[in-house]
Amino acid sequence: MSYEPTRDDKFSFGLWTVGWQGVDVFGPASRPLLDPVEATYRLADLGAAAVTFHDDDLLPDEDTRDATLDRFRTALDETGLVVEMVTTNTFSDPVFKEGAITANNREVRRYALAKVLRNIDLAASLGAKTFVMWGGREGAEHGASKNVPAAMDRFRDALNVVCGYVKEQGYDLRFALEPKPNEPRGDILLPTIGHAIALISELDHPEMVGLNPEVGHEEMAGLNFAHGISQALWHDKLFHIDLNGQHGPRFDQDLRFGAGNLRGAFWTVDAMLGAGTSKRYDGYVHFDYKPPRTEAIDGVWESARACMRNYLILREKVQAFRADPEVAAALEAAGVHELEEPTVAPGESLDDVRNAAKKMSKADLEALRSRSVAMEALDQLAMEHLLGVR
Amino acid sequence: MSYEPTRDDKFSFGLWTVGWQGVDVFGPASRPLLDPVEATYRLADLGAAAVTFHDDDLLPDEDTRDATLDRFRTALDETGLVVEMVTTNTFSDPVFKEGAITANNREVRRYALAKVLRNIDLAASLGAKTFVMWGGREGAEHGASKNVPAAMDRFRDALNVVCGYVKEQGYDLRFALEPKPNEPRGDILLPTIGHAIALISELDHPEMVGLNPEVGHEEMAGLNFAHGISQALWHDKLFHIDLNGQHGPRFDQDLRFGAGNLRGAFWTVDAMLGAGTSKRYDGYVHFDYKPPRTEAIDGVWESARACMRNYLILREKVQAFRADPEVAAALEAAGVHELEEPTVAPGESLDDVRNAAKKMSKADLEALRSRSVAMEALDQLAMEHLLGVR
Amino acid sequence: MSYEPTRDDKFSFGLWTVGWQGVDVFGPASRPLLDPVEATYRLADLGAAAVTFHDDDLLPDEDTRDATLDRFRTALDETGLVVEMVTTNTFSDPVFKEGAITANNREVRRYALAKVLRNIDLAASLGAKTFVMWGGREGAEHGASKNVPAAMDRFRDALNVVCGYVKEQGYDLRFALEPKPNEPRGDILLPTIGHAIALISELDHPEMVGLNPEVGHEEMAGLNFAHGISQALWHDKLFHIDLNGQHGPRFDQDLRFGAGNLRGAFWTVDAMLGAGTSKRYDGYVHFDYKPPRTEAIDGVWESARACMRNYLILREKVQAFRADPEVAAALEAAGVHELEEPTVAPGESLDDVRNAAKKMSKADLEALRSRSVAMEALDQLAMEHLLGVR
Amino acid sequence: MSYEPTRDDKFSFGLWTVGWQGVDVFGPASRPLLDPVEATYRLADLGAAAVTFHDDDLLPDEDTRDATLDRFRTALDETGLVVEMVTTNTFSDPVFKEGAITANNREVRRYALAKVLRNIDLAASLGAKTFVMWGGREGAEHGASKNVPAAMDRFRDALNVVCGYVKEQGYDLRFALEPKPNEPRGDILLPTIGHAIALISELDHPEMVGLNPEVGHEEMAGLNFAHGISQALWHDKLFHIDLNGQHGPRFDQDLRFGAGNLRGAFWTVDAMLGAGTSKRYDGYVHFDYKPPRTEAIDGVWESARACMRNYLILREKVQAFRADPEVAAALEAAGVHELEEPTVAPGESLDDVRNAAKKMSKADLEALRSRSVAMEALDQLAMEHLLGVR
Repeated sequence: MSYEPTRDDKFSFGLWTVGWQGVDVFGPASRPLLDPVEATYRLADLGAAAVTFHDDDLLPDEDTRDATLDRFRTALDETGLVVEMVTTNTFSDPVFKEGAITANNREVRRYALAKVLRNIDLAASLGAKTFVMWGGREGAEHGASKNVPAAMDRFRDALNVVCGYVKEQGYDLRFALEPKPNEPRGDILLPTIGHAIALISELDHPEMVGLNPEVGHEEMAGLNFAHGISQALWHDKLFHIDLNGQHGPRFDQDLRFGAGNLRGAFWTVDAMLGAGTSKRYDGYVHFDYKPPRTEAIDGVWESARACMRNYLILREKVQAFRADPEVAAALEAAGVHELEEPTVAPGESLDDVRNAAKKMSKADLEALRSRSVAMEALDQLAMEHLLGVR
Repeated sequence: MSYEPTRDDKFSFGLWTVGWQGVDVFGPASRPLLDPVEATYRLADLGAAAVTFHDDDLLPDEDTRDATLDRFRTALDETGLVVEMVTTNTFSDPVFKEGAITANNREVRRYALAKVLRNIDLAASLGAKTFVMWGGREGAEHGASKNVPAAMDRFRDALNVVCGYVKEQGYDLRFALEPKPNEPRGDILLPTIGHAIALISELDHPEMVGLNPEVGHEEMAGLNFAHGISQALWHDKLFHIDLNGQHGPRFDQDLRFGAGNLRGAFWTVDAMLGAGTSKRYDGYVHFDYKPPRTEAIDGVWESARACMRNYLILREKVQAFRADPEVAAALEAAGVHELEEPTVAPGESLDDVRNAAKKMSKADLEALRSRSVAMEALDQLAMEHLLGVR
Repeated sequence: MSYEPTRDDKFSFGLWTVGWQGVDVFGPASRPLLDPVEATYRLADLGAAAVTFHDDDLLPDEDTRDATLDRFRTALDETGLVVEMVTTNTFSDPVFKEGAITANNREVRRYALAKVLRNIDLAASLGAKTFVMWGGREGAEHGASKNVPAAMDRFRDALNVVCGYVKEQGYDLRFALEPKPNEPRGDILLPTIGHAIALISELDHPEMVGLNPEVGHEEMAGLNFAHGISQALWHDKLFHIDLNGQHGPRFDQDLRFGAGNLRGAFWTVDAMLGAGTSKRYDGYVHFDYKPPRTEAIDGVWESARACMRNYLILREKVQAFRADPEVAAALEAAGVHELEEPTVAPGESLDDVRNAAKKMSKADLEALRSRSVAMEALDQLAMEHLLGVR
Repeated sequence: MSYEPTRDDKFSFGLWTVGWQGVDVFGPASRPLLDPVEATYRLADLGAAAVTFHDDDLLPDEDTRDATLDRFRTALDETGLVVEMVTTNTFSDPVFKEGAITANNREVRRYALAKVLRNIDLAASLGAKTFVMWGGREGAEHGASKNVPAAMDRFRDALNVVCGYVKEQGYDLRFALEPKPNEPRGDILLPTIGHAIALISELDHPEMVGLNPEVGHEEMAGLNFAHGISQALWHDKLFHIDLNGQHGPRFDQDLRFGAGNLRGAFWTVDAMLGAGTSKRYDGYVHFDYKPPRTEAIDGVWESARACMRNYLILREKVQAFRADPEVAAALEAAGVHELEEPTVAPGESLDDVRNAAKKMSKADLEALRSRSVAMEALDQLAMEHLLGVR
């Protein structure tokens, strides 16, 4: 197979990904500024179907804003790429140093909200359907510095405001929250997929707000990303996704997709495809990663190419795994489908359940204790599909 | 101050805590079996107000069940202790080796449900108001072995069933889910506070189900426990609590409260008291820890004593911190109370917000960028209260 | 390729691996006791070349010791398996609850030493060439409870004693220390490969003592295992190895080899083969893992089979990667071999180095700053070999 | 007590600490450039006894080098501060993007070496006695990109070269390696205290090279810092120290000393004072931290003040703990001093040890198994000293 991406694969890249210049806490840029419009053409050449951006990535200053937007629209026209998602940078400008939507400083909160609103208009005008909100500076290093219930109030209010605005304007736009446990703040609010879904349940328009989970963000907390997005799918909240790679609890590595936890990447694709379940992700396959600071521009494009290629390789393997008759037998042996049956059948009483339990003999229980679950065998089949030796 | 616990402090202990014999993956019991009824008397002597238990802790076999229950009721009468919470062990018996409520094996799920129901009756008969559910074996080591959306269905169904049963019986009992990211399973379902609250939002009777978060479980994921319970309080979901100690991402240490992350313990007590917020935990102060396997029985009681003592010490310090006029000034300097003000005032339009942002001059923005937040100073005040040098 | 192990592959298993019954902190055994002699036959059938054991695995009591040893020697004869390594259990018996070689209690230390000496005699009599020492309980949960420099003295003394004993007896036996950061103790002494090599440098006979690193133990500290064993090889200290799988900082998972960090497993095999370096591991390929508690006996043997199979698969892939001309070109592009050249050439003065630096123009420096390192491309080649798509 | 630092406390600060402007991966500087000479005066006012610097902190460009050095020498004269340590920045300039001393690119290695040599001359001329080497970019993200044994060769060679140079020049200067597991590189060489000591054992002049461990760097790997520096002291390798704070495995937080793991900070000071052992650190008490990006300049100085203050508070508490007669009794009860006794007495034979073990009855063993170790009680005493309630 060629593993060449096509538009139907719906690959999407943040302009800030290939545009990252390599600034980190320990050193300045190692790469020159990449013109975001040029990057758009290049991503189209590589096979992407869409691009996404923060306001500041594309339009860092007012003086060049209109001209750049014109050039960008031309690039979209010429390449056929779409803008599927837009997001607002509320974390770089030091004005947001202690938070944006949940800054203690009310003037900052209002400034942040205005910045988001302006970018919602832009997103709608460009046809984006998803608006991501990552609150990178919403958090604290100091116990008393942030009243968390009050911050939750402000988060909820802001989401209610922007949902109300979108409804009022008639935009076809949904919001996607992006959880992260820490970095750059000591502890960030809404640290995991779960915490963000919980917040959504308290909103005026919960149906308008979902999630944009990122592989590395969950893995920084040692959490299983495939499980996380499966729970999000179960809640119908997987509105968007950020694919990349990470080596567990440490700094945010933002490796290209596939690097880091490769087995996790396989199960991530499996979960996105809803391969073993009734829930499936149908949105854009979005990469949010950073080409390592070591790389020159050749490595930037190689890493972008490899993100897509690895997804296509893994997708093929997942499909082969799920289509393999031995796997079907192994799933049967592990009783995986049995979990789809309700524990209490329709019409059954709890007394039925209790009586069945009471009637179990010691031998019945011993049989259950020593039953084969055959999950190692099932997992080894997946391993061999992944390794390409079946 | 004496730091001697009284019944008004509402301290509560799991009988399995002092009863842990030290069995771990690498060695057998280092301590003899402790009679749970004797433990009840001893905990009363130490100043506890309540005890809690899993069915298997107190009543490991049918033959002695009634006699033990009689002795236990006598102990409660004689000591004045109450049973404030009961929970079911659905994780030790190898019958539950691949799950209980979400086992692939339906017979196991039914057996687990019957075990829970039986224990709910016992809980109600003993006057417990909270029923904790920790699904220690609900999870997976292998990607394909568990259909997560189906498992979520089964989890939801089981909670709907038990809530329905409690309503039908007229019991005064609420459920509290206990999240944990991993151990003993590779990845456990409902890994954090957030994931559990999210599930609750999908239930038939969400008001009947809340959380029983455990310090160490969140800290194993590198999460800030005080933030976690503050979000739970914000959702009105902090039904119960498990206090203990942990040293970050590693095996579940279950240290006595105060050991491990001491600064975290200070902020945990602060959050429980709702000291800086409008949300407060009013339930029992429950310890779920393990006296280290190294300790003989003297160390068991010393560690139980120390859990309560450390809570009382920290409570006093939190109160002093919050009452300190310098702290009030530091909170003001850090703008902490300003977060209580809505970002958009009642009656204000979004245009007001946008116009205010537009009117900001470069100098205005520079002033916000370089503004003092004085959070290090605030945090140092907390540190000095904790260290007892103020 | 068949991936069927042969004796030449030198696969070795601890008898305690397949023998693990599933006891953990949260539940009792899920599998019946496996006769270690029967396990020996079975491992031979599966393709192992050797077995290893702790004294307590094979010979749990004195009454059956001689008879079991006879049966075991017969099994070795009949199967052709060898005992390549022996180790002493100084962590299960509660007598060792606060340490063995470094227990505060001197009587315990002497008892531990006697237990080790007895087992050294047995190891020599069985022809083992490596004697592993894992000090699972050598550590502390409490800051003041262990005088670390004194513990290091006792560790050093004990190693000097056993080395002296082996020399005196004329045994052909080397020692291998096994580092681990934590679990079952809060913090274990000699937590990493580095700490153990450091200790060895202080011994009377440093040439007699090396390491037995375990994949999961280093990864529990977030360390790169391939880097770790590469440093050990550089010190000529990789005497033995424990292969298994782990998901980063959390409890000790002891997954079968390949599970967990698969990309790490690829680089581990690469480092063992010395594929890109001048240092190579020539010892037995030893698995120290635990079949998950969920599995019945079928899963035990499946997991053992899969450990060997995954090693063979990965070995083949590493060899193909290193033989691929495109990889050779990519290594060249990344300058990997250039690191083998000394920084200062023989005969060169430091002034030569300084003058060369002084002579560098701004343009020279800019060229170095923006140079291509092409490491993403190199890594993607490795990825594709691993995935079997090249 | 006043907790006001004096020169006798030997507090030392890196000029880059208070000088950090807040640049991180997610945003630019939040604070203006701080003149390092002005910072020197200010640190003197706050009570520091010494300053340290990287070449690039103080002397970022050639044009101002001489003038700045003059101003800096004047500041040292006027304040009485000394330069106790100097280090070279071999990690910020993108020339070092894939390493400096161990870059694949030999020209870069030579440039790095020249930069180090030049700074050694400066260090000697300023009277510094310690020269720290942190190889922040010596590492890899990609398995095949770095030949680790070759990198170890280059590390060793470079240390041999600089040691030879210092001897040749007759400088009174020792080297201190600073380990770190990751960030900014995916995996850094010499990731822990142990790995660095191991390398030193292979040098031509091992006595000239020791360590500069940093609290946060070890804690990022989940390691116990007090244990780590205790092992370094045991090897006579604790040449220097970097105090700061961290919350376990995550990004490098560089919090002020005391923040993060407070109990760990107590044991760190205890280990530095050699309070319970025969090994003591006598060097400068050096802080290497970052004032949070949120803070304005007032927070910078507050955090610097608090580092020293927290050290003084903890030192007082450690001394009180070690002087407390109840603690002495608890140490006795825990058998802590017994570990100082050799396991095998001088003149004793191993047969004596074995015979003693053989003579132990079942009852003797049972008594050892159930013996009290009373370590929880000991630890609680430490806790109460720390909390200031004794």
